[in-house]
Amino acid sequence: MKVILDGMGGDNAPSEIVKGAAEASNAVGENEICIVGDEKVIEEELSKHIHSRRNISIIHAPEVIEGGDSPVKSIRRKPNSSMVKGIEAVRDGVGDVFLSAGNSGALVGGCVMILGRIPNIDRPAIGSPYPILDEGVALLIDAGANSECKPHNLLQFGIMGSIYAGTVFGKEQPRIGLVNMGTEKGKGSPMLKESYELMDEASGKLGLKFVGNIEARDVPVGICDVIVCDGFVGNVILKMTEGVGLSIMHLLREKFTEGIVATIGAALLMGKFGELKKMFDYTEYGGAPILGVTKPVVKMHGSSNAKAVVNGIAKSIAFAEGGVVETITDNVSRVSGLAPDEDNCGCRTGHDVRDENGGTE
Amino acid sequence: MKVILDGMGGDNAPSEIVKGAAEASNAVGENEICIVGDEKVIEEELSKHIHSRRNISIIHAPEVIEGGDSPVKSIRRKPNSSMVKGIEAVRDGVGDVFLSAGNSGALVGGCVMILGRIPNIDRPAIGSPYPILDEGVALLIDAGANSECKPHNLLQFGIMGSIYAGTVFGKEQPRIGLVNMGTEKGKGSPMLKESYELMDEASGKLGLKFVGNIEARDVPVGICDVIVCDGFVGNVILKMTEGVGLSIMHLLREKFTEGIVATIGAALLMGKFGELKKMFDYTEYGGAPILGVTKPVVKMHGSSNAKAVVNGIAKSIAFAEGGVVETITDNVSRVSGLAPDEDNCGCRTGHDVRDENGGTE
Repeated sequence: MKVILDGMGGDNAPSEIVKGAAEASNAVGENEICIVGDEKVIEEELSKHIHSRRNISIIHAPEVIEGGDSPVKSIRRKPNSSMVKGIEAVRDGVGDVFLSAGNSGALVGGCVMILGRIPNIDRPAIGSPYPILDEGVALLIDAGANSECKPHNLLQFGIMGSIYAGTVFGKEQPRIGLVNMGTEKGKGSPMLKESYELMDEASGKLGLKFVGNIEARDVPVGICDVIVCDGFVGNVILKMTEGVGLSIMHLLREKFTEGIVATIGAALLMGKFGELKKMFDYTEYGGAPILGVTKPVVKMHGSSNAKAVVNGIAKSIAFAEGGVVETITDNVSRVSGLAPDEDNCGCRTGHDVRDENGGTE
Repeated sequence: MKVILDGMGGDNAPSEIVKGAAEASNAVGENEICIVGDEKVIEEELSKHIHSRRNISIIHAPEVIEGGDSPVKSIRRKPNSSMVKGIEAVRDGVGDVFLSAGNSGALVGGCVMILGRIPNIDRPAIGSPYPILDEGVALLIDAGANSECKPHNLLQFGIMGSIYAGTVFGKEQPRIGLVNMGTEKGKGSPMLKESYELMDEASGKLGLKFVGNIEARDVPVGICDVIVCDGFVGNVILKMTEGVGLSIMHLLREKFTEGIVATIGAALLMGKFGELKKMFDYTEYGGAPILGVTKPVVKMHGSSNAKAVVNGIAKSIAFAEGGVVETITDNVSRVSGLAPDEDNCGCRTGHDVRDENGGTE
């Protein structure tokens, strides 16, 4: 497999991105890494690290799409950017999967415009790895690409997420859950009730494991492997996990250093704190797949460091090797109720994506 | 002030409810508590506890609305229930505020049907106290009464929440934040963009402090005093806080008892764990106001114990004494864009409310 890597995307590009690529190059075996970016800059960064040149190549791209750029316009206005060149490379078969830590909105919009949607998928989605405390990881979909969804969008998210979780996370029969205000069938808005019906019916046809409605309270404990919701709710779930987690850690630090007894106790526990913190470390999880477009594409966290890049490259290879895109294409063609609605504008997909640096269309 | 208390609502009714009323009766001074429920049963429970009879009276109500009852139908079908009798008592001026741990959907629906909405408020909302780690409490509105909202609904939630937080929580110039996918103006769906505009404009007119868009990540750290969102998102925020909080506590327990060193450390910290747990204890916060109806009504957690009732009674008195309903009525009459939309059916308000025992319309 050949991984096309956006060398200029993200807060720590190009240094950390190239460093990660160099490290990965010594471990990818027969696989290759192709870095897209300003050739001179990339070469200079590469020269700072031990790497296996045999596994690394470069595609020259003088322009850069910044985090603050308008997601969709930037794709049109910067044809020589590392992001556009990289997406085109997977479209043209130069590589098998594209990996970028750049502007999320531009990446999703660019994928739709340059790669196009899988037939019958009208809204591609971002699937975000969600750390299940002490029990591995689930996939939350949509993580922010579509803030408003229709029932068939959520159905599509469930199907795509299940295939990805099964292939890349190695889950057997991933449990698909629909985020709702209660677990009983018939809960929530008319949109969610219809989504439930569609998912229930399609799961039967495709042999997927739909566990029904789930409450947000049960998400962190790992009640399912694929967490289905619209992009706004997905954003709230991810941000609440981060916010509550960090607040508690902060509070523990404070409380645990009030008084000598607590301080001693805390000192004895430092190692355990480390283990706990590790669970909230996005660099562990290898990036978020953009599902519903015709090629494998992975979005890495905007502040990805070399370690995140190494993990991202590994997961990207599994994503491409597993034939996730092909399986999704086959599955969606087998269920009804998936016809795209009127709104076929690729841009829309990008509008609501939160990108780390705040760019919006 | 006279607090009308639903003696039969909630998982621990009537025992814990009456016990709480008895305890409170010794501390409410000139205020009175009127318990609604089966007279014989209430008297029997009361006789088990020391109480100030001078401050306690009973309204006989032989019927009970169960948690599993249909929210709206039950209001019509059980005219002699403690909930209906209680709401009627505040409507008729027998008491000043109604407090219940019963079926949330029925309570909201009942308030709308029996008390009616404040002029220009078309969607009453549930305001839930949200514990800010180590920094007191904020008000989250809507906590689950309206899963789908229009911009003017969110504006109304912000105004009502600000008035309640200022009066009952004693916050000066409560900071009102709109939950969105990013903090920049112009983020989110068209509905949220319009909500932002409305809130920005109205805050100027009413002298309220609208801080703009907030991200879910910043909710737990107390970025604002009034957290405005639709009922679905509100439900997700509350449930995620509970879920992540409990998961981490559980994990800490596990990790901290792995090995002798950690176990000793944990033992030394037990007191601190207690303090931390206390922050997640809903019984501390005195219940959730139902805002937008013509009288003060407070919903207590379904599994409220005596302590929660004592706190609920205290907050209810502050709610009624503070003239929150009157201030809301005055304020909403002073801003435009608040005209009720076509959907004036009280039932709607109740449909999406999650009640602890799963009852839905």
